[in-house]
Amino acid sequence: MIKRNPCITNIKAGYLFPEIAKRRREYAAANPNAKIISLGVGNTTEPIFPHINSGLTEGAKQLGTAEGYSGYQDEGLPELREKISTVFYGGKFTIDEIFISDGAKCDIGRLQLLFGAGTKIAVQDPSYPVYVDGSVLIGAAGGWEGSGYAGITYLPCTAENNYFPNLDLIPQNSLIYFCSPNNPTGAVTDRAGLTALVEAALAKKSIIVFDAAYSEFIRAPALPKTIYEIEKADTCAIEVNSFSKPAGFTGVRLGWSVVPKALKYSGGESVNADWNRIAGTIFNGASNIAQAGGLAALSETGIKEIRSLTDFYLGNAKLIREALQKLGITCIGGDNSPYIWAHFPGKDSWEVFSQILEKCQVVTTPGVGFGPAGQSFVRFSAFGHRADVEEACKRLSNL
Amino acid sequence: MIKRNPCITNIKAGYLFPEIAKRRREYAAANPNAKIISLGVGNTTEPIFPHINSGLTEGAKQLGTAEGYSGYQDEGLPELREKISTVFYGGKFTIDEIFISDGAKCDIGRLQLLFGAGTKIAVQDPSYPVYVDGSVLIGAAGGWEGSGYAGITYLPCTAENNYFPNLDLIPQNSLIYFCSPNNPTGAVTDRAGLTALVEAALAKKSIIVFDAAYSEFIRAPALPKTIYEIEKADTCAIEVNSFSKPAGFTGVRLGWSVVPKALKYSGGESVNADWNRIAGTIFNGASNIAQAGGLAALSETGIKEIRSLTDFYLGNAKLIREALQKLGITCIGGDNSPYIWAHFPGKDSWEVFSQILEKCQVVTTPGVGFGPAGQSFVRFSAFGHRADVEEACKRLSNL
Repeated sequence: MIKRNPCITNIKAGYLFPEIAKRRREYAAANPNAKIISLGVGNTTEPIFPHINSGLTEGAKQLGTAEGYSGYQDEGLPELREKISTVFYGGKFTIDEIFISDGAKCDIGRLQLLFGAGTKIAVQDPSYPVYVDGSVLIGAAGGWEGSGYAGITYLPCTAENNYFPNLDLIPQNSLIYFCSPNNPTGAVTDRAGLTALVEAALAKKSIIVFDAAYSEFIRAPALPKTIYEIEKADTCAIEVNSFSKPAGFTGVRLGWSVVPKALKYSGGESVNADWNRIAGTIFNGASNIAQAGGLAALSETGIKEIRSLTDFYLGNAKLIREALQKLGITCIGGDNSPYIWAHFPGKDSWEVFSQILEKCQVVTTPGVGFGPAGQSFVRFSAFGHRADVEEACKRLSNL
Repeated sequence: MIKRNPCITNIKAGYLFPEIAKRRREYAAANPNAKIISLGVGNTTEPIFPHINSGLTEGAKQLGTAEGYSGYQDEGLPELREKISTVFYGGKFTIDEIFISDGAKCDIGRLQLLFGAGTKIAVQDPSYPVYVDGSVLIGAAGGWEGSGYAGITYLPCTAENNYFPNLDLIPQNSLIYFCSPNNPTGAVTDRAGLTALVEAALAKKSIIVFDAAYSEFIRAPALPKTIYEIEKADTCAIEVNSFSKPAGFTGVRLGWSVVPKALKYSGGESVNADWNRIAGTIFNGASNIAQAGGLAALSETGIKEIRSLTDFYLGNAKLIREALQKLGITCIGGDNSPYIWAHFPGKDSWEVFSQILEKCQVVTTPGVGFGPAGQSFVRFSAFGHRADVEEACKRLSNL
């Protein structure tokens, strides 16, 4: 038979979240009476609010009518692209700079095709797994070397540097993954930090993939919600974003990427034109029903619903953060993001994960699963029903 | 700035269908009174039938309720995977061999990661563009060499070989793309042909990606609707399929891939396990609303609706085929498939495309856009409203 892609051989066996699910299953099997609460995967739990939901329902209903039927919409509904530009970017981008996707993670997987196997990768450490795993799959990174993959520059984000990396570590001509509000740390980079990041990218002739999937959780007015608030970011950054968390669309699948026309490769070719070609070739657009829901989400009422839903999860985050702080556990995040990053100095992440599972029947995510600098941390996700979160907070005192 | 992926440089500038859309727009601009009818892109036009549509609508409505809400469903609804196994494969596969996707084209783009840049590619010529374009993007093929890409073995399917390729051309250890009912030729491979294909794949230690997206258009009882009707196909073939054409889901986005556990690479590693890893890493599943629609489509009533819808498009196909035959134009397809492949010996495909556009105001697809052996052919798609198809058939007499 033909050979396996050697890039797959390089990747570590288990994707983080299935591994957590497996350990949870094993624990449940051994403890059939345990009422396990998951604060692990960042999976939304609350029903979609009425106006946004009616957008989805109407979108579905329409497809049964001659007037409302639609087929392929590769590049996405023009109205939705327009609305995204208006609501999130003050109308700064034309609709052909905004590409509707089936979610940020899926688009990140495809975006790596713009640069290919020869690319140098720099990532915040810890970081969301798809940046690194996707880079390995496409051959931009090599084998696992104990605490990281060959060819990837890890940019540690630790308590010592206030979770903002040393930008001097970024190699020339690299692809930089940067996420703010950060998953998993919950840290949000301020204007000065993002300005430094853009300046570093320009100086190093690098391109940033800026993951803003949690921007709607930002409450502090001074914190930037998009990298394009920074001057010249349109010449060095792609932004990916998603309706998953703000609108409860994790299962609905809808997101977008901004690929500005001002963004060029070293040879002067347009990244936007290439992305258009790639998306047309290996993608067929997000569901038109999801897009109808997206339009409803960006109406005046929809935006209020997004605010209410993110307020709710931020309420959960506050409870978790306070419960941890009461126990004397140092943690960050949870104020402008739905994740709380808790520090257990000197301990192994997976051990802490197991302890919390065994003593509290609460599932978390071991920090080391997000990268070497995540060791001794555990991520708490604020996505959950209120009663479950309250119960989990009570149980945390068993630690 | 960082460099462009050299693989993109290899790919020809325009994806086929956007190029056709551009020429149509130019013609419309120059002839503002022309009533253009499209028999070009294979895009469904008829509303989704009531039962399947109520599945979608209910699926959307559910998400607004506490009981019905769901988030991430990476691998797809277990009920849907089970149902697909039962309806299409007689229960032959377990649910972990069936992966729900957002469509066949999107999954084909991802599937190439299983094998990577070092893979030898063999494709039917002509063929659906994503097989070849996707191979170029991932580096398994090189630059354009006049009539094809370096490193791709084209398997001509012509009138002379009754649109079934010479399998001796397939290189050892290659990835073979094969589509039946074929897009664009409309030819369907019979049992003897598929048996020969499976035997060739086994003998050449190759893996087939079998695209069965048009299987629901097969009416002749003797013709196989899946490659797994052939013995040992589960040891050498992945099958991709889609709800797009049979259920009118081109805009809804739902498909599936079968990756049997019996399928191994040369080193004995499980292709199924790798696909699970890849799908979990760079994909987040199809929309849960689309999946609810898929479940409705595979109920007893839904299956009848699929039959009615495909009957309707086959009715269009019959009209087009007969209109062409009346003009003395040789063509195949359109009986067990929604495409008619019309031969204009000695003529250039794009010239025929332009002639039909100018003389009949009918958009087709130039055969050469599907590969070198498509030269002098034009594809007619049977997806359209009946009145438009009838009008188009009338106008064809202007040729």
